Amino acid sequence: MSWLETSIMARKGVAKGVAGKTYQITEADQGAYHYVYGPYAKPVLRVDPGAVIAVETHDAFEGKIKSESDRPSEKLNFPYLNPQNGPIYVNGAEKGDCLAVYIKSIVPRGPQPAGTTCLIPEFGGLVGTGVTAMLNAALPERVRKVEVTPEGGIRWSDRITLPYQPFIGTIGTSPEIEAITSLQPDYHGGNMDLPDVGVDAVIYLPVNAAGALLYLGDCHATQGDGELCGVAIEHPTVTTVQVDLLKGWTIHWPRLETANFFMTIGSARPMEDAARIAYRELVRWMASDFGFDELDAYLLLTQCGRVRLANMVDPKYTIGASVSKTIVA
Amino acid sequence: MSWLETSIMARKGVAKGVAGKTYQITEADQGAYHYVYGPYAKPVLRVDPGAVIAVETHDAFEGKIKSESDRPSEKLNFPYLNPQNGPIYVNGAEKGDCLAVYIKSIVPRGPQPAGTTCLIPEFGGLVGTGVTAMLNAALPERVRKVEVTPEGGIRWSDRITLPYQPFIGTIGTSPEIEAITSLQPDYHGGNMDLPDVGVDAVIYLPVNAAGALLYLGDCHATQGDGELCGVAIEHPTVTTVQVDLLKGWTIHWPRLETANFFMTIGSARPMEDAARIAYRELVRWMASDFGFDELDAYLLLTQCGRVRLANMVDPKYTIGASVSKTIVA
Amino acid sequence: MSWLETSIMARKGVAKGVAGKTYQITEADQGAYHYVYGPYAKPVLRVDPGAVIAVETHDAFEGKIKSESDRPSEKLNFPYLNPQNGPIYVNGAEKGDCLAVYIKSIVPRGPQPAGTTCLIPEFGGLVGTGVTAMLNAALPERVRKVEVTPEGGIRWSDRITLPYQPFIGTIGTSPEIEAITSLQPDYHGGNMDLPDVGVDAVIYLPVNAAGALLYLGDCHATQGDGELCGVAIEHPTVTTVQVDLLKGWTIHWPRLETANFFMTIGSARPMEDAARIAYRELVRWMASDFGFDELDAYLLLTQCGRVRLANMVDPKYTIGASVSKTIVA
Amino acid sequence: MSWLETSIMARKGVAKGVAGKTYQITEADQGAYHYVYGPYAKPVLRVDPGAVIAVETHDAFEGKIKSESDRPSEKLNFPYLNPQNGPIYVNGAEKGDCLAVYIKSIVPRGPQPAGTTCLIPEFGGLVGTGVTAMLNAALPERVRKVEVTPEGGIRWSDRITLPYQPFIGTIGTSPEIEAITSLQPDYHGGNMDLPDVGVDAVIYLPVNAAGALLYLGDCHATQGDGELCGVAIEHPTVTTVQVDLLKGWTIHWPRLETANFFMTIGSARPMEDAARIAYRELVRWMASDFGFDELDAYLLLTQCGRVRLANMVDPKYTIGASVSKTIVA
Repeated sequence: MSWLETSIMARKGVAKGVAGKTYQITEADQGAYHYVYGPYAKPVLRVDPGAVIAVETHDAFEGKIKSESDRPSEKLNFPYLNPQNGPIYVNGAEKGDCLAVYIKSIVPRGPQPAGTTCLIPEFGGLVGTGVTAMLNAALPERVRKVEVTPEGGIRWSDRITLPYQPFIGTIGTSPEIEAITSLQPDYHGGNMDLPDVGVDAVIYLPVNAAGALLYLGDCHATQGDGELCGVAIEHPTVTTVQVDLLKGWTIHWPRLETANFFMTIGSARPMEDAARIAYRELVRWMASDFGFDELDAYLLLTQCGRVRLANMVDPKYTIGASVSKTIVA
Repeated sequence: MSWLETSIMARKGVAKGVAGKTYQITEADQGAYHYVYGPYAKPVLRVDPGAVIAVETHDAFEGKIKSESDRPSEKLNFPYLNPQNGPIYVNGAEKGDCLAVYIKSIVPRGPQPAGTTCLIPEFGGLVGTGVTAMLNAALPERVRKVEVTPEGGIRWSDRITLPYQPFIGTIGTSPEIEAITSLQPDYHGGNMDLPDVGVDAVIYLPVNAAGALLYLGDCHATQGDGELCGVAIEHPTVTTVQVDLLKGWTIHWPRLETANFFMTIGSARPMEDAARIAYRELVRWMASDFGFDELDAYLLLTQCGRVRLANMVDPKYTIGASVSKTIVA
Repeated sequence: MSWLETSIMARKGVAKGVAGKTYQITEADQGAYHYVYGPYAKPVLRVDPGAVIAVETHDAFEGKIKSESDRPSEKLNFPYLNPQNGPIYVNGAEKGDCLAVYIKSIVPRGPQPAGTTCLIPEFGGLVGTGVTAMLNAALPERVRKVEVTPEGGIRWSDRITLPYQPFIGTIGTSPEIEAITSLQPDYHGGNMDLPDVGVDAVIYLPVNAAGALLYLGDCHATQGDGELCGVAIEHPTVTTVQVDLLKGWTIHWPRLETANFFMTIGSARPMEDAARIAYRELVRWMASDFGFDELDAYLLLTQCGRVRLANMVDPKYTIGASVSKTIVA
Repeated sequence: MSWLETSIMARKGVAKGVAGKTYQITEADQGAYHYVYGPYAKPVLRVDPGAVIAVETHDAFEGKIKSESDRPSEKLNFPYLNPQNGPIYVNGAEKGDCLAVYIKSIVPRGPQPAGTTCLIPEFGGLVGTGVTAMLNAALPERVRKVEVTPEGGIRWSDRITLPYQPFIGTIGTSPEIEAITSLQPDYHGGNMDLPDVGVDAVIYLPVNAAGALLYLGDCHATQGDGELCGVAIEHPTVTTVQVDLLKGWTIHWPRLETANFFMTIGSARPMEDAARIAYRELVRWMASDFGFDELDAYLLLTQCGRVRLANMVDPKYTIGASVSKTIVA
């Protein structure tokens, strides 16, 4: 028996966490990608809760960085960055509900070297940017193309190989009236760059628009905490997800569940606000759903909470706070 | 001769800063207000550069807070806050241009007491909020309604009267593809809450969408630096502006000109990033348009730059950095 | 009659704001300067409340940057920067009291050009630093030496002259057990770089150690808001102050009074915390000493509070929040 | 063979990482505890590199919180908090050297319940504080006393037991001239509250004063990431450390080594600056000591760096950034 059968998705979902009809969204099906999360785009697909959807995602550069001699500043055309698949309309979803997305698999697609990372001027965690505005000269641009295979991992160099630990960098629902750039994470999900959004995890997203309007893209073959230079191992994939709908389970920020832990996710600047959001949501979740007194949960998480720094480079920084199921179950 | 005749608007504008045809946008003309700054709404008006437009703005609460016994949390319906007039399509405006808006007058309208300020739960500069997330209990709600007249000022109490110093709290152009909540200031202008955006000032806004798509609203009868509790003296007005178009004068953040100074405006969190943006833009402006060496401008502003804290309460904080025309002219 | 006669210093001071015995601290009297604010140094002078003390301050570089061809990185020897006069022991001062310092005059001393500003690697508001740690290359070093006279002002260039508007950059009392670098502002005062600490102002400082242990130095001939590049027009001076002692008037952060306004001063990072400290102190001061309800004061300052950004470059940023005496008197 | 034999401490240390003479510092030996890290205190012990020292540390409250009915605000006397043992003078240590401290063991001492956690007004990660200054009412005070044994762990409740995972919350060397409160972490170490500073780890500390002047205290029986409410499971211990001296190995921030990884540690506000410091130090360390090109290290850490949020509650926040020895060895 999979842990999924006892998940919140299984317990509260309209489809009870059971896989339903299968779909795919190929590049051709998708047609034009999207660069904002909003309610103004026409759904590419309409499904019922339980649907399993295999999505051909593109890399964050839409494949425009083809070789190590390409200069990102010449190839990329802001704001048309971080192309997203979707939106997928989930029948029955209304404001105040929660959309659950179980990640079944992520596999690389396309020719090798499939992975790309690079230095982009005025972008990254250790450089001045458009908002942390500096007069210092930018770093030189640099591109690394790397082979990525599920079995062989990521060939960084002759000496260094990193394991393939893929996850969805950008995933979320539509805001009610805003159209938020796909570069930004926020209360709706978006560009969180959180490695826990990987295979065999369920991410829970707030529904703010009819049909939820799920978008996703920007899969990473692996990533360190914080996504330091701003660009993980970006790669095109086939990503397969199963959706479910939790009617009336209202959440204000994304949450995540794995076999082992519950996580809440906050995105904000400065970084401490991302941590505050995540931990406050976790305190409140323990109080509302797991029988803890709020201040006791606060004291207990002080002793056993875990924090994952997802990104320190996007328009808002993202932090996940989690607690082991051994504590809250 | 008005200083305006030597302004950048006059020198670079298509209409040379000269007033053209006059228009008005009444409440009836406007119809539904907007709550996002984006390219997805139909223009309410199309004008040529030089147009003078009298706009009936509503207060930030769309008039829903009618008495001191109203509770904001019951009357307000997020995200339908801070209603905006527009968008106004300015003929000829294209991405990379600059829209100049000269503020000719602001007068209160509607029945007295016309002014409203209040405490809203989890909003304000000295309380925990949705992002500076705290476990502390919220402050009590409180509403103050005050008489506002141009001559009599703002009657705060029997003892205290504040002068009428009106300005436009929220004004900006449309982003290219984003639809940004009218509660947020950013590179496009928006909810800056900057008292310098008052009568006899020109604000320069980047054009990111065809027609510029000017929105405005949220006029304040007066406001302290930082808009401490989050709510200035909100009031409905007739606000009259004259627009002009600066072809090919590309700016990345809003700028402002008065008879006495040039200002650049940054919005970000943490607050130091707002200051960094504003000051870097000012350094670069002095270098590009006024003949300064960049590092000399940096050294000189260290001695004579002025900073206005506009808001410390909105999703991004706003700071204006300015330099006297006696220095740069 | 001077406004000083109705000041808090005059009303609450042991010496009733009346000038007493006069002293001077020459360079020879001072001997070695101090680079920390702490209780571990021997007082250079002991005085009663009311004492008037003329202090020969050195510039922030202790005179080591002598010409425009000097390189700061070669001349300066961290942490022996920002030399301070004192400590001055004020008889009768105990923890929980308040030390008032009235600034009577500041005049330049020493040979011309008396003023120095410069770019120091990894220091300043628009560059990466030791804590806002970046990989970008540092800016080039640069030194400007300028003539400074009270009458002629600051000769920046043939075209630009700035008025002489001197103030004390660094002033404060000793912490109880800490010894805080003279580069840092905090609850004890220190390196606030606040232009309001000028002639004819009273600064109120918390007393945390017996005798208060007043230190001061780092006078600036003028400075813009934020002290953008980190170095104002530094110059050696004779600075004359009058001290008084407010027994039992316990304050937690520095305050300031002029003829026209009351100000509270906060120092912290990120910058919004400096603003929060300053404004909360001001709200509480209006409630405790001027008869306002706390939440009314919060609402009122939203409409009429003023903010001065003192520095955006020191280990903590400093902000002053003020309210006009016309409002609170 | 222990990994320690191939550690940097073993390779660069004067004592080659080999244990030398043994000492103890009992409560009686210590006499008065210290509440600042500075050069103004008399050493309690002088040792050669290689010395093994068993230290009786007190808990962060110096044992003053004895029962769950105690109110922290009544028992604690700021700034006499977080009592520290030491300073220990290490013979031969000079400014520019590095002090290595290998943590051999930590065992609880004193009567049960030995562990204390609590809510202190205006202190913690999810409340307004003295610097993140708010007008909201403080949370109620609350004390939890818990049994702590190495075998039985931490008895939180009938249902929840946490494993005993002890570490040193506060450890560091003396600054050159500052005396920094033991509540604050910084470049010298101090109150980092980093769970990796546990048994079988080596922490490397910069030497800024003759003899290094090692202080330590504040051991935690366990702690979650961020030390959310500000108070971990505080407990008195016997903590045994072995010191070594790395002549001429100059570091600017603390570093840490375990069998599996190398870590750099930054402390700052806002939190992103702590992350920037830690990661920049790690990039530079990989370049200086492990043969990486600096920008390649930056790109590689983007894919495989790990971040530990140590505290989000102290005067500066602390973050550790690490890289697996499989990558850099």
